[in-house]
Amino acid sequence: MLWLSIDRTSDIPLIRQIYLELRRQILRGELSSGQRLPSSRELAAHLGVSRNVVLEAYDQLISEGYLESKSGSGTYVAQGAYWELTSDQGITVQPSDRSFIVTTADLIDFRSGIPALDHFPRKLWGELTKRVCLEASAAAFGYSTPEGCLELRSVLAQYLRRTRGVHCQPDQIVITSGAAQAFSLVGQLLLSAEDTIALENPTTPEIREIYSTLGAGLDLIPVDDRGIQTQWLPASKPPKFILVTPSHQFPLGSVLTIQRRIELLQYAKATGSYIVEDDYDSEFRYSGTPVSSLQGLSPESVIYIGSFSKILSPALRLGYLVLPLEMVQACRRLKRLIDLHSSTFEQLALAEFIQAGHLERHIARMKKLYRQRRDTLKQLLNEYFPEQVRISGDSTGLHLVAELNEIDFSPDRLHKIEQQRIRIYPMSIYAPSQEKYQKQIVMGFGNVAIEDIKLGIQRLKRGVME
Amino acid sequence: MLWLSIDRTSDIPLIRQIYLELRRQILRGELSSGQRLPSSRELAAHLGVSRNVVLEAYDQLISEGYLESKSGSGTYVAQGAYWELTSDQGITVQPSDRSFIVTTADLIDFRSGIPALDHFPRKLWGELTKRVCLEASAAAFGYSTPEGCLELRSVLAQYLRRTRGVHCQPDQIVITSGAAQAFSLVGQLLLSAEDTIALENPTTPEIREIYSTLGAGLDLIPVDDRGIQTQWLPASKPPKFILVTPSHQFPLGSVLTIQRRIELLQYAKATGSYIVEDDYDSEFRYSGTPVSSLQGLSPESVIYIGSFSKILSPALRLGYLVLPLEMVQACRRLKRLIDLHSSTFEQLALAEFIQAGHLERHIARMKKLYRQRRDTLKQLLNEYFPEQVRISGDSTGLHLVAELNEIDFSPDRLHKIEQQRIRIYPMSIYAPSQEKYQKQIVMGFGNVAIEDIKLGIQRLKRGVME
Repeated sequence: MLWLSIDRTSDIPLIRQIYLELRRQILRGELSSGQRLPSSRELAAHLGVSRNVVLEAYDQLISEGYLESKSGSGTYVAQGAYWELTSDQGITVQPSDRSFIVTTADLIDFRSGIPALDHFPRKLWGELTKRVCLEASAAAFGYSTPEGCLELRSVLAQYLRRTRGVHCQPDQIVITSGAAQAFSLVGQLLLSAEDTIALENPTTPEIREIYSTLGAGLDLIPVDDRGIQTQWLPASKPPKFILVTPSHQFPLGSVLTIQRRIELLQYAKATGSYIVEDDYDSEFRYSGTPVSSLQGLSPESVIYIGSFSKILSPALRLGYLVLPLEMVQACRRLKRLIDLHSSTFEQLALAEFIQAGHLERHIARMKKLYRQRRDTLKQLLNEYFPEQVRISGDSTGLHLVAELNEIDFSPDRLHKIEQQRIRIYPMSIYAPSQEKYQKQIVMGFGNVAIEDIKLGIQRLKRGVME
Repeated sequence: MLWLSIDRTSDIPLIRQIYLELRRQILRGELSSGQRLPSSRELAAHLGVSRNVVLEAYDQLISEGYLESKSGSGTYVAQGAYWELTSDQGITVQPSDRSFIVTTADLIDFRSGIPALDHFPRKLWGELTKRVCLEASAAAFGYSTPEGCLELRSVLAQYLRRTRGVHCQPDQIVITSGAAQAFSLVGQLLLSAEDTIALENPTTPEIREIYSTLGAGLDLIPVDDRGIQTQWLPASKPPKFILVTPSHQFPLGSVLTIQRRIELLQYAKATGSYIVEDDYDSEFRYSGTPVSSLQGLSPESVIYIGSFSKILSPALRLGYLVLPLEMVQACRRLKRLIDLHSSTFEQLALAEFIQAGHLERHIARMKKLYRQRRDTLKQLLNEYFPEQVRISGDSTGLHLVAELNEIDFSPDRLHKIEQQRIRIYPMSIYAPSQEKYQKQIVMGFGNVAIEDIKLGIQRLKRGVME
């Protein structure tokens, strides 16, 4: 008789236990092809289960081809059902780069672009997502359109017009999974083989990686305290697009002047290049009101990219594109092909959050908090490094640039600093092989509490002096 | 004196009103370069506002380059700040294809692959997302790793081992925005110029579109009632991968037999092709227990793709890849480049949902519901089309295939049927130019209530008779 054990205390139903065990034995060749199985009656009696249980297991094995039933003769193991199961592959997976995951250990991290995570409006957001889930129509639980929920696109178009001078209709907006997806979509939409794009220099390594992976040639255009230096845009072979951060250059922090904006737009019109405007943290402008968007000056040549990562939370993965009308169709199609659409409920919750005025109140509250953090950081830098520090790029956003006279941020120096349990980011990350930035560091203060800023600057001092 | 109007009843702060109005006049050339502005004192008196308000507006316009201040002489409109604003572009955006959005009008839609949207566990899910939002660590509101939350990957690995015989560690899982993103990632990871892939024929047009857009040559392999016909796999120039739906072929509904499974795996081993296993609705098997995955037989050559769209809701956009170990690193990098990671809170809510046993209870409940719908549909088809209908592919999942003798589902016929306010899907959508499928339709019953199935079959009868 077939050796087969069942476990009556297991959660796994008896039918499935019998099925799995017979399947295993056939696959391993313990039961070989042509072998006759006991009748369902016999096996049932042997196992002390109802005959139906065995019949169902046999039926399933027959339907999947493991067994065959010959009428009048019985049930047999089928041919071609033997397979040598392979064991583990012995490859070890490297842990993911966690460098931009916030750590909780005793390390003070001045990474830029992280908002105050402990000030996320948990209660409000939790209530909103719950309410959306309870109140949404049944259809909202099905598939949606690639461009995202109309509810969100409508309030967003109004919000952008009011606060950023962005000139658009809801139809021009495509909701993306964060700005990262928006960058990737733009590249996939516009780039063909041999194309080049123009990036600011310095810029983030992530941006360079996204576009070089898509095969684009990168034209790096220098930046000064008035933003991208438009006179260096290539006269021949214009780039497919020019990616700029006009409200708050990343990482230098400069604001693009109106003259350069106009030169940029004129260049785009003359060459047919698009301008991609990355407006990542312009809401937090500490003197005066936020600088208006470039998009508002020329909606037909600017692709505007926004994100809720800095003003709300990166964990939500909510961003968007505002597109020139002629690009909308192609972008919707591409979004559909790559992931159909972004998650519906977080879109609906965000629409409510904006509509009810929560977003603007949250931004106002956070601006106050960030201003305090910025002011403390500036004050302490000046106090601990008198006559030595020069601060720039601090009019807007979640980071500033500090230049420390006579300090080179070499790998060796950075290592000494990190030993003090503080992490800072040298400008060289953003502008490889550019000597002039060697004494500069980028300091994000969005997610560093006042006490940690104090402690951090003391540690920086020690790390620099050592 | 400068003409400038302010609105004291507006929500827009006075500084911003003055800034925006001056900016507009300069851009339009109404204030031309070199023109002297009134002193802040004069303008403040004229507008009846405090002098600081005007000073701040002037300061911002100076910092953005619209104005320049000459010491001792006053404030002037700068050069190069004139820009002719363009008006709307007159392009109209076509509305998105809404054909797979569920409509609420009086149309009975037998679209496949839509779960019972009105049975989504709203209350439970709403509570869970709220709780996750309240209880998550502050770090959870920051950036996460591209492969997704460990909490979810851990419970998922266990769940897949238990219910699907999938053999994997949490490290082999990458959480994606639905299965759609998983398909796209696999293509981007594996395909180079000139590569071909093998698809089942019939298959969905979406799958064909995703891969042909990525430039792959498509090798269409016929399917019969035992699944993909492995003998037609190309002997020379093997495909980069073979995409199969072994648990429930889409759309024919057949289950891939063990013999074919083994032939497929042998082919993959011999040629170095990967197998991509799309396991989209295997949880709903109505006779016996779910068929075990192909992945469990050969984890090193099978890429397993799963989704929560059919068992929970497509609106969540939660899917995943289970990868052979050697692909993990590259896939994480690509996921990081395309959208950094999927939304954290829905991942955490889902982890809880699975961990607490809610998912398996939900599946059991839905299986009961779907079985009733399937049985009603079969019974009514047999009743309304006696001697004429042949039903297949109904052992598993959310759709079945009906073949109606003597009825060709031509565009003309389909139009007549749709006039009866019922929508059905001819097999020809999935297998273009294949004559033999002309009499077949694919009928999804997941989201059609019993009463609507009754009404729908009456309408189908009328549409077919007319």
